[in-house]
Amino acid sequence: MSMDLLIKKIKEKGNPSVVGLDPKLDYVPGFIIEKNFAEYGANLEGAANAILDYNKALIDSLYDVMPAVKPQSAYYEMYGVYGEKTLCETIAYAKSKGMYVLLDGKRNDIGATSEAYSTAYLGETKITEGKNLPAFGADGLTVNGYLGSDGIIPFTDNCKKFGKTIFVLVKTSNKSGIELQDMELKDGRKVYERMAELVNQWGADSVGEYGYTSVGAVVGATYPEEAKALRQIMKKVYFLVPGYGAQGGSAKDVQYSFNDDGLGAIVNSSRGIMCAYKKGDYRDEEFAVAAREEAIRMREEIVSFIR
Amino acid sequence: MSMDLLIKKIKEKGNPSVVGLDPKLDYVPGFIIEKNFAEYGANLEGAANAILDYNKALIDSLYDVMPAVKPQSAYYEMYGVYGEKTLCETIAYAKSKGMYVLLDGKRNDIGATSEAYSTAYLGETKITEGKNLPAFGADGLTVNGYLGSDGIIPFTDNCKKFGKTIFVLVKTSNKSGIELQDMELKDGRKVYERMAELVNQWGADSVGEYGYTSVGAVVGATYPEEAKALRQIMKKVYFLVPGYGAQGGSAKDVQYSFNDDGLGAIVNSSRGIMCAYKKGDYRDEEFAVAAREEAIRMREEIVSFIR
Repeated sequence: MSMDLLIKKIKEKGNPSVVGLDPKLDYVPGFIIEKNFAEYGANLEGAANAILDYNKALIDSLYDVMPAVKPQSAYYEMYGVYGEKTLCETIAYAKSKGMYVLLDGKRNDIGATSEAYSTAYLGETKITEGKNLPAFGADGLTVNGYLGSDGIIPFTDNCKKFGKTIFVLVKTSNKSGIELQDMELKDGRKVYERMAELVNQWGADSVGEYGYTSVGAVVGATYPEEAKALRQIMKKVYFLVPGYGAQGGSAKDVQYSFNDDGLGAIVNSSRGIMCAYKKGDYRDEEFAVAAREEAIRMREEIVSFIR
Repeated sequence: MSMDLLIKKIKEKGNPSVVGLDPKLDYVPGFIIEKNFAEYGANLEGAANAILDYNKALIDSLYDVMPAVKPQSAYYEMYGVYGEKTLCETIAYAKSKGMYVLLDGKRNDIGATSEAYSTAYLGETKITEGKNLPAFGADGLTVNGYLGSDGIIPFTDNCKKFGKTIFVLVKTSNKSGIELQDMELKDGRKVYERMAELVNQWGADSVGEYGYTSVGAVVGATYPEEAKALRQIMKKVYFLVPGYGAQGGSAKDVQYSFNDDGLGAIVNSSRGIMCAYKKGDYRDEEFAVAAREEAIRMREEIVSFIR
């Protein structure tokens, strides 16, 4: 219950950032792909296993400097059943290294079906009376609140039962997020501010020892003014902040997502860390070293703005 | 491109309905579960294989009377990798029997990630230069439009390239859908009406021979008045109509989702068909017969209202 476990890990590492594991095959160094194609074939299985090797090496290099990983489910689903296996094993591996695993799946549905999603990612699947097994076993999950409370409660129920978290899309980092999210309501608020109000409601009964609820919000780094306003509306809500780096959000921009306690936000970087080796003066074999150096650079940069 | 393939199948069967395959283990007759637990163990693998047997028997019994199946992804994801395998095989099996496969996954993300989802379900995954493989191979996918156009275009691109369809959540069937979707905008419209406008935009360039676009809309049977209004706003848009039966929507209610051409909507029933054997005077072994009888009853009932 509550956001405590994630916050504990952020404090331990002194690092309010999360590495997005969005492993396009183009990101994976050629020697890893070749090895896996040789072993499994140039097919979905070979590609998925290359991604698993890549992820594990990144986790090995990052786990002592970063508190959390955020696998983006889409990049695993595109390799079918083999990709899902890689996702499962990536989650388990990151957890075994002490990292908090926030699965980015943006799941949403009506109550009964949200319950199935909640079971899949945050809970345990009932096999027989008294025998329940975890399917994916993540620590947290991103969700979409378009369907309202009865689609969210099955997730908050598992947050309480298993000490998990969810992050609801409020203000997304992309340009056309405004097409629906920024429509002005009759009462003068924007649609995303109404969503923020719902997020407050959904988390209200789950405030933890650091003062934050188990229901976080996704607030893009690319809209710093909106983030500043949302920080005031959702004081007890942890922000997951995408859009830093490749999408154009800066450390200066993300500072507004933090509260005065230095907490309240975790900033994501995916491509910036995963592909750091393609930028600097690195050989392909040094991809994990490059990722670590970028992770440390990012940490220092963000921390310098919230001190 | 366009909705033509689905419409062709609806016309062939004279049946504007789709069977939702939302296979909770509780729905599966005990003898199927026992057989699979004996073969694979009482675990995620055994459960997922029981569901596959159940689905295949339902498809065998329904494929000549129903044009389409709608597997709900959540109910497969909850059995982890084994569940995903069952999903893949269910999709392939239904297609081999000539059914249109509409995957209910309500996926959504920003552009680059939507591209990965679109690849996973509607497109083909690139393995090497010139070698692409389908991951799940559905014919259509439900999506959530909260992130706006750049999150939708990767799906419409694959609709064009591979002749697929998407169905965007507009007005969902659940009670608390109203919490966001029915908020009134400054211009007097509701949020869901703004979403309907976006759906029109997203499909505008994909009108097929029957006059419908490749971008459909999810419009719940439980809100007939709203469906009537949305039918006028989205004239060229096919409606996927959940909420019939177990959720309270009647055939009388769903008639408003159709156009005067007798087309324009496909009505979903999940539990009503899957669990028909639990209602009537059936033995467990007759679950597929019961499903077929309910499917025929539903067809007659719906068709009687749209003639």
